[in-house]
Amino acid sequence: MNVDEMRAIVKEKLPAGRFEHTVRVAETAVQLAKQYGESIEKAEVAGLLHDYAKCDSKDQLKRQMEQYDLPMILLDYHKELWHGPVGAMIAKEKFDISDDDAINAIYYHTTGREKMSKLELILFVADYIEPGRKYPGVEEVRDVARVDLEKAAQIVLKNTIIHLANRGATIFPDTILAYNELTKKIDLR
Amino acid sequence: MNVDEMRAIVKEKLPAGRFEHTVRVAETAVQLAKQYGESIEKAEVAGLLHDYAKCDSKDQLKRQMEQYDLPMILLDYHKELWHGPVGAMIAKEKFDISDDDAINAIYYHTTGREKMSKLELILFVADYIEPGRKYPGVEEVRDVARVDLEKAAQIVLKNTIIHLANRGATIFPDTILAYNELTKKIDLR
Repeated sequence: MNVDEMRAIVKEKLPAGRFEHTVRVAETAVQLAKQYGESIEKAEVAGLLHDYAKCDSKDQLKRQMEQYDLPMILLDYHKELWHGPVGAMIAKEKFDISDDDAINAIYYHTTGREKMSKLELILFVADYIEPGRKYPGVEEVRDVARVDLEKAAQIVLKNTIIHLANRGATIFPDTILAYNELTKKIDLR
Repeated sequence: MNVDEMRAIVKEKLPAGRFEHTVRVAETAVQLAKQYGESIEKAEVAGLLHDYAKCDSKDQLKRQMEQYDLPMILLDYHKELWHGPVGAMIAKEKFDISDDDAINAIYYHTTGREKMSKLELILFVADYIEPGRKYPGVEEVRDVARVDLEKAAQIVLKNTIIHLANRGATIFPDTILAYNELTKKIDLR
């Protein structure tokens, strides 16, 4: 399947606003891939497919998590965290994506994790800074992403942790592990 | 050793300001113990000894962590997290405290952990709300601590996470696990 066919299937599946976000994430991921020497094709594919399961209902997501034998610990956390792993499995099975790095980028694009690859960092940051995002602090991340991908990801993780804690929401442990790892790495430079 | 002898040894060891904090924590812990039906004696002892190692140098703490065979993973985190475990070991060996609950309360008073006992929650909250503390948000925790010990501890954990993330500091995983556990428990009530 080529990227245009893939885009058409994603467009068919997602509500218009979510599809537009998806296209902007793919474009932003491509820009970051060019800048940081990552595969443009993988960045585009990961961007296009990352939110494929985003608008599925809770029940649909739960069924797919069972079907794909995904870690049930996710069910103890917010539904928002489920569409990444489900989308990754769909990318593999429905879209025949065989590249593990692209699959992992989709899998971990909401939570982050320790030892993120360059492609994982690119999708993670692109999802946060695509031009449609209006979060407080997003401009800082856009500026940093021009010069330092790991630092940009660390700020995204930091902002996410603060946002979740301020709301009194639980925080998935992978997010903290990723934040701690990048924080230590950056401090040691 | 009785409590007066214990207090005298702690006074001898700590700088005046830290000793005064210690006494206020012990008094606050005793109040909470009365209120929530915990042992007053254990609360007082845990309060008096919790910061015994607080003013030790980094090298002294590191040596004691080796001597007591404490988890070396702590060395990857801020020195601030080391005095609880070291203090717990000193409480056991130097002060002959045999009660595991009191030892654990001292051990985890900075980080928190999953499945904290009532005494652990009491010391954890008392350390945050003792009358000398001036943190933003401390009044809210004082108010909540009058009616709901777990909720008070959850707010302390939340504020700690936000404070650390805002500073760009690492966050010890036990702190997140404790926060997530209490958050879920409170949401389910």
